[in-house]
Amino acid sequence: MELTVYLAGQIHDDWRKKLKDKASQKNLPITFVGPMENHDRSDNIGEEILGKQPNAIIKDDVASQFNNLRTRVLMQKADVVIALFGESYKQWNSALDAGNAISLNKPLILVRPEELHHPLKEISERAQVTVTDVDQALEALAYIFATE
Amino acid sequence: MELTVYLAGQIHDDWRKKLKDKASQKNLPITFVGPMENHDRSDNIGEEILGKQPNAIIKDDVASQFNNLRTRVLMQKADVVIALFGESYKQWNSALDAGNAISLNKPLILVRPEELHHPLKEISERAQVTVTDVDQALEALAYIFATE
Amino acid sequence: MELTVYLAGQIHDDWRKKLKDKASQKNLPITFVGPMENHDRSDNIGEEILGKQPNAIIKDDVASQFNNLRTRVLMQKADVVIALFGESYKQWNSALDAGNAISLNKPLILVRPEELHHPLKEISERAQVTVTDVDQALEALAYIFATE
Amino acid sequence: MELTVYLAGQIHDDWRKKLKDKASQKNLPITFVGPMENHDRSDNIGEEILGKQPNAIIKDDVASQFNNLRTRVLMQKADVVIALFGESYKQWNSALDAGNAISLNKPLILVRPEELHHPLKEISERAQVTVTDVDQALEALAYIFATE
Amino acid sequence: MELTVYLAGQIHDDWRKKLKDKASQKNLPITFVGPMENHDRSDNIGEEILGKQPNAIIKDDVASQFNNLRTRVLMQKADVVIALFGESYKQWNSALDAGNAISLNKPLILVRPEELHHPLKEISERAQVTVTDVDQALEALAYIFATE
Amino acid sequence: MELTVYLAGQIHDDWRKKLKDKASQKNLPITFVGPMENHDRSDNIGEEILGKQPNAIIKDDVASQFNNLRTRVLMQKADVVIALFGESYKQWNSALDAGNAISLNKPLILVRPEELHHPLKEISERAQVTVTDVDQALEALAYIFATE
Amino acid sequence: MELTVYLAGQIHDDWRKKLKDKASQKNLPITFVGPMENHDRSDNIGEEILGKQPNAIIKDDVASQFNNLRTRVLMQKADVVIALFGESYKQWNSALDAGNAISLNKPLILVRPEELHHPLKEISERAQVTVTDVDQALEALAYIFATE
Amino acid sequence: MELTVYLAGQIHDDWRKKLKDKASQKNLPITFVGPMENHDRSDNIGEEILGKQPNAIIKDDVASQFNNLRTRVLMQKADVVIALFGESYKQWNSALDAGNAISLNKPLILVRPEELHHPLKEISERAQVTVTDVDQALEALAYIFATE
Repeated sequence: MELTVYLAGQIHDDWRKKLKDKASQKNLPITFVGPMENHDRSDNIGEEILGKQPNAIIKDDVASQFNNLRTRVLMQKADVVIALFGESYKQWNSALDAGNAISLNKPLILVRPEELHHPLKEISERAQVTVTDVDQALEALAYIFATE
Repeated sequence: MELTVYLAGQIHDDWRKKLKDKASQKNLPITFVGPMENHDRSDNIGEEILGKQPNAIIKDDVASQFNNLRTRVLMQKADVVIALFGESYKQWNSALDAGNAISLNKPLILVRPEELHHPLKEISERAQVTVTDVDQALEALAYIFATE
Repeated sequence: MELTVYLAGQIHDDWRKKLKDKASQKNLPITFVGPMENHDRSDNIGEEILGKQPNAIIKDDVASQFNNLRTRVLMQKADVVIALFGESYKQWNSALDAGNAISLNKPLILVRPEELHHPLKEISERAQVTVTDVDQALEALAYIFATE
Repeated sequence: MELTVYLAGQIHDDWRKKLKDKASQKNLPITFVGPMENHDRSDNIGEEILGKQPNAIIKDDVASQFNNLRTRVLMQKADVVIALFGESYKQWNSALDAGNAISLNKPLILVRPEELHHPLKEISERAQVTVTDVDQALEALAYIFATE
Repeated sequence: MELTVYLAGQIHDDWRKKLKDKASQKNLPITFVGPMENHDRSDNIGEEILGKQPNAIIKDDVASQFNNLRTRVLMQKADVVIALFGESYKQWNSALDAGNAISLNKPLILVRPEELHHPLKEISERAQVTVTDVDQALEALAYIFATE
Repeated sequence: MELTVYLAGQIHDDWRKKLKDKASQKNLPITFVGPMENHDRSDNIGEEILGKQPNAIIKDDVASQFNNLRTRVLMQKADVVIALFGESYKQWNSALDAGNAISLNKPLILVRPEELHHPLKEISERAQVTVTDVDQALEALAYIFATE
Repeated sequence: MELTVYLAGQIHDDWRKKLKDKASQKNLPITFVGPMENHDRSDNIGEEILGKQPNAIIKDDVASQFNNLRTRVLMQKADVVIALFGESYKQWNSALDAGNAISLNKPLILVRPEELHHPLKEISERAQVTVTDVDQALEALAYIFATE
Repeated sequence: MELTVYLAGQIHDDWRKKLKDKASQKNLPITFVGPMENHDRSDNIGEEILGKQPNAIIKDDVASQFNNLRTRVLMQKADVVIALFGESYKQWNSALDAGNAISLNKPLILVRPEELHHPLKEISERAQVTVTDVDQALEALAYIFATE
């Protein structure tokens, strides 16, 4: 029994790496996938592949095509989706990913500080579990495999 | 041929009423549905039905149950979903609704000011059409019925 | 916009009739469906249609075929499922109906007295809303239609 | 050809271990999954991960989130679901799991003593097979692989 | 609440007409649909629409296209499928329709004389109900609507 | 029993109008839907709604968004899809619509002159019926309703 | 790339073994699955697992449960279904399996002698390919893997 | 994490081989599948398996059955579909495959020269990404696996 887990959320710090390291230490048979974490590359991927675009709007449009290609393929492979919210950034993509996970019938683990309880209450209600930090999300994943 | 359209987005002004009025003037055979637009009632619906709750957190939790009941039932009825984004509010529920619409295979019309192009580029890419104001969204709906 | 609501739960008192009467008073555009409420007929429907059976086991087997025919057809028509639990009876069919509603992606309203919180906690968690009496379930349905 | 089988039912004795041991002796290529069988841990998993909760109700609510996360992920992986019913306990979760299995189109093996024929007749009718003990369920699984 | 019922089975006598007449007498709100009952027209429909074909094989091939168009469209509309088997004819189309109904999750009512119990035992097991004559099938349909 | 039929294919002559007129004469209870038949409006709909675009490429891109919105909504409503191919034009949208209809499990009627047999053989094989003119397609639709 | 192929059809001669042997000689990466081919065991499997039954009817009923368990699990695993028809036996299960395969969107290979063209014309039309002997069915499978 | 990619498009040059070679050089864990690239064999596969056919029309009909068998099985296995369009050939099968990919919810990468922008604008709009050459498509696939 192996699981694939999609990690949605901001790409401005290394929370995914920390989660993966801890999962390795626990020997959990999980493959983690997620968006491109190199923010510059994520913004530039359209021009990287298609060449210089006429303006910033079109540069964004083509970048979003490749980023969504990646997200769609990897989320389709996932058994569970974790969506992390924090105090910074608009994080609309995280909420979009949460909605996609829910309607694709993939259990959602919502990670958010308690201060964000109110604005995230509807997402939390549709998530399968809500926790306040990434370590708790990892414990939730470990519990799926636990035998005692 | 009649259509049902779900109107996702903020509930702090009367954009839905304006849209419905204009649709009436055009005699479009559309039933518009959406979230509870009375913001206080939306926040209080849990206590309204279940009675006084122990604290604000739990009050929110139960309110979100009833709000999501409404959203799920009505979005399931919808042929098209319109999601409106503006400069104010976190609007995570709007992004959640967008994700749900996309994965339920319901065409999404994204309405947002051009200033929000960058943070909404991935949602825009998965939307069926992106427009900048509600009148344009209505024209898009009217085009579905147009015969010439 | 009209809704169909399936009413799962025990058939030993007239809770469904009370719910329907109150919905009529509120002029809610809801069609309520559910199992055969005449308990004797429900137990005898196999013999009623197929004739005398060899023993009580087979009588039960054939009755369950016709009862499940009814449940499957009517639940497939439903937009929302209400499941009522009380202190009496095994109520395994109610839990079965709850599971079917959840996996058919039909929002579930769980109605149960607070004393049953613990044994119903997993069903409650997967229900869309949990209330303690039938009047509250009706208010939840009314909220779907409310415009202010 | 390997199969995954979800084992739903009470967690108060070691029926799952016996089943797994016998399947091993028969060299059946089956991975068995199921709920957390450590009853205390199952009840406490919410507090174990999220910390002390304000009261027993909320403790239950959060525990059910993690238990349902486990059930949803593992049942999604399953090719067959076995649901065991006995004389003790309410067993509403077993009936819930049976309903979920049926509507997810996963064949259900119902295991129950003959005394429970009447109250389980509708679940039995929707199950793919009904047997009276766990050894028979294992024989049913072995028959899927049998070549003569 | 109205139902659509597809009537699969041989087209060599007027069993469908009798069923429809009795449903009318009972005022059941059911629309019955089914294959073309004019056997000659059913065999000739390919040539009727496309013109004379080179040989009997191709005549059959094109007829089957139009007959299957009809069956697919009408079965998709159906809430329930009735499949009638008798002593005569190969009736492979009836068994095909039964399989399609089952995998489309449309409850199947199997009508067959008791003499055919053995060869139809697997179809019967997957049918929702099995009866021995058309009147019983109609009673099963009536039971879906019965209120007492 | 009413049907909705989507009419895919070129928009350069009035074949749809002829089909609709003949269906009216036959009193068939069919609602026909399809793409915008005003070719100029179809090409300009993006600029009509969003205003002048920077260049022809972007003008095309936005037009295709609104045309696909229309197609997706109307095809989702359809019970049957008719795709017409002729000697002129690339007709890639017709083949795209055919593929969408097939994978959405909507029976496809392919209309094409015999000269196009070879290049359309794979589409024809996956279509439910293949005919050579629009009158035959209408006869196929009429056959679905025929009672003798 | 490996495929799983379900072999539906009569179990009175060793056509499956011949097919498997030839597939081995061609080194095709295919796992073949299918019904229990030991006819006596298939008829007796209910009593083998559940013990002596009251009469032949019930013996059949319980046998069909275990046979359908096997069929459902294995067909769900299959990428392709082959259904063989011959001159003997009623073969209603073969037609049932064909219908299930079609509605589960699994490509069907129909194998039948030319003499059976007429009664199988509708099944043939919905099959993906129709051939006249098992060797041809194997060639069809080999063609899926062929690189030149 | 491994992916399967279906390569739709013309079979008149070796674009698939070049793509596979480059993917090998990049060590991408991708299995590429697609139609039979030997054009003569593709046209003759019906006669190769079934023997000489009466005429060219029927020869085409049977060939298309085996080609579609291959396409359906392999596309079902695919995580991503690439559809290549060029200046030559009708390429209706490529557009058909694009439609099937879209409605099966498999992300589509459209490859086409810029000159074909206008006639492919609707397919492009529904594709997940649009690029102008095969190397760019490969970069898009590589981006799914990229970790920095």
